[in-house]
Amino acid sequence: MKLNILADLLNIKYPIIQAPMAGGITTSKLVAEVSETGALGMIGAGYLTPYQLKNQIIEIRKMTSKPFGVNLFVPQKFVVNTQDVNSVKQILDAINKELNVTYTEDLVLPNFLEEHGKFNEQIKIIMDMNIPVCSFTFGIPSKEIVASLQNANVTVIGTATTVEEAMEVEKSGVDIIVAQGAEAGGHRGSFINESVDSLIGLMSLVPQVTDTVSKPVVAAGGIMDGRGLMASLCLGAVGVQMGTAFLTCDESGAHDVHKDAILNTQENQTTLTRSFSGKWSRGIKNKFIVEMREHEDTFPVYPVQNSLTQLMRKASSLQNNKHYMSLWSGQSPKLAKRQTVESLIQSVIKDVKDITSRLI
Amino acid sequence: MKLNILADLLNIKYPIIQAPMAGGITTSKLVAEVSETGALGMIGAGYLTPYQLKNQIIEIRKMTSKPFGVNLFVPQKFVVNTQDVNSVKQILDAINKELNVTYTEDLVLPNFLEEHGKFNEQIKIIMDMNIPVCSFTFGIPSKEIVASLQNANVTVIGTATTVEEAMEVEKSGVDIIVAQGAEAGGHRGSFINESVDSLIGLMSLVPQVTDTVSKPVVAAGGIMDGRGLMASLCLGAVGVQMGTAFLTCDESGAHDVHKDAILNTQENQTTLTRSFSGKWSRGIKNKFIVEMREHEDTFPVYPVQNSLTQLMRKASSLQNNKHYMSLWSGQSPKLAKRQTVESLIQSVIKDVKDITSRLI
Repeated sequence: MKLNILADLLNIKYPIIQAPMAGGITTSKLVAEVSETGALGMIGAGYLTPYQLKNQIIEIRKMTSKPFGVNLFVPQKFVVNTQDVNSVKQILDAINKELNVTYTEDLVLPNFLEEHGKFNEQIKIIMDMNIPVCSFTFGIPSKEIVASLQNANVTVIGTATTVEEAMEVEKSGVDIIVAQGAEAGGHRGSFINESVDSLIGLMSLVPQVTDTVSKPVVAAGGIMDGRGLMASLCLGAVGVQMGTAFLTCDESGAHDVHKDAILNTQENQTTLTRSFSGKWSRGIKNKFIVEMREHEDTFPVYPVQNSLTQLMRKASSLQNNKHYMSLWSGQSPKLAKRQTVESLIQSVIKDVKDITSRLI
Repeated sequence: MKLNILADLLNIKYPIIQAPMAGGITTSKLVAEVSETGALGMIGAGYLTPYQLKNQIIEIRKMTSKPFGVNLFVPQKFVVNTQDVNSVKQILDAINKELNVTYTEDLVLPNFLEEHGKFNEQIKIIMDMNIPVCSFTFGIPSKEIVASLQNANVTVIGTATTVEEAMEVEKSGVDIIVAQGAEAGGHRGSFINESVDSLIGLMSLVPQVTDTVSKPVVAAGGIMDGRGLMASLCLGAVGVQMGTAFLTCDESGAHDVHKDAILNTQENQTTLTRSFSGKWSRGIKNKFIVEMREHEDTFPVYPVQNSLTQLMRKASSLQNNKHYMSLWSGQSPKLAKRQTVESLIQSVIKDVKDITSRLI
């Protein structure tokens, strides 16, 4: 039965992966509770230092003996252009004044070699600490890294937003491919073409990807309940990755302002922006996104822009100011609930049973 | 069983509506064959004169005694601004020269009162000729029109692209609501907000719409086979409307260049444009779409722009020149096949059986 393919591969009970949302959302409590309930908890480790990652793994292991995974951002080449940086600073200045943020003298901008070094250390931790699942976004790790992880018994998951990307991801040797539809919240996983052309709705993306690749495909984007899980299985996926549905759970580390914003949003109030991080992401339209529209094409690439807006994001969070926070959300906010992880997963499984009996 | 709700409502065998693609695609042969095979054939009558519509209905009735429907464009207020028109003409001039098209002295631009008069005549034909199903796009007909049609035993279908639009459509009293996802090819049915904010992926749109309205919902956009049909039923829809899948069928009137373009396209090569008609539509990216990008925001609204590009579209069709034709397609071109309507519908039904047995 299709319901078991992913569960068997990942040694879990239900074919559900909790999307690895970086930036403090995937608390140890969230990850542990998801795994305890029978799905796969994931640490969104993109922004974590190796030290932080190691500590979080130790913390989660104290809370569960079930398998959980780690997601990493594949570093992409970038250069820091001082002129660009200064012009962004100028634009952000008015906002930062409003929030009483001042750039410290020693604002440290990212550096590709350091990012790359951090990535290699993260990989080493995953292998050393016997993490059973490692997923990647923002690109494809080298074949060597994929093979090393697999030799260390790590199941490797890649992310694709188009058929072309899925074919590239498959070539790297990964075990599972996440197909991320246009509906998905947060950062787009696109790495070949980051334009709107890579915004393929999941209903179109999943069957076209599964027809093309031979590896198992996991559907991601806008899936919030058992209806989305069953639909994904019908389209040929072996399971789903759900983000926003877990983000509003009690155990998630998302800011209350963020959770409330999702719970009070309509499906046509999310939008794509690159103003927060330099990479296209879907979130709830707020003042910052709207006001930066005219500038966003000129902003530096990830992770440079991400570093530049960091203080603003931190300050607005501390001040409960939703105008300048990154309120990531997929296109199904009306299906979000404030609930425990256990109640979310139980309701997904109940939906699956209801649909199965209704459609037979 | 969910598979029967739509079939019972429309007095057909399978819960499949052939999307009403205007502009010569829905030949009498296509409509009749779809209905003969057990789905619902639809005349895309948006561009037809009352006389043409009447004749096509008579022609189809000679080919089938099964029910079929008619789709109409709800006229929206517009004004013709001579200055705008002249600046478009100037832009199109180079292309028209290349195609040997010259504007005739008496190019007739559309007129709202005439469009409205035509619409009322079309409605009258549908009632007089006992057409059992009438669907609407580009807006909502008045409550009076909906009620008159229903009194004449016509099942009325409205189109929505967001939850907000679905609520408005439901208020008008229609019997069924088509939820058109971002994946859909051809014209967007959006009528409240025509911006990118109304591009909701079907995986998100269907459950959020079905949770909000009480009328039955039909899913549309990117659905090409039984996988899409079953996925839509899981999401809460009672059936599907399929366009591109029927467009490449032998019986469709689409130009061979158009059919071939779809059969040779990747899923990330369609895009939205308003350059052909003044209304946002999804089609395969070609020279015209790309070259008009810088102008498209300034083009007049539908149906003015549509009239202005008519000669260019006609000439490029006659010359088999794909660069200036409107090559409408949804986001699943890789699932399209050149086949008969009968073989398409049989394969959908086979998929449904396979998926049902696989998921139990």
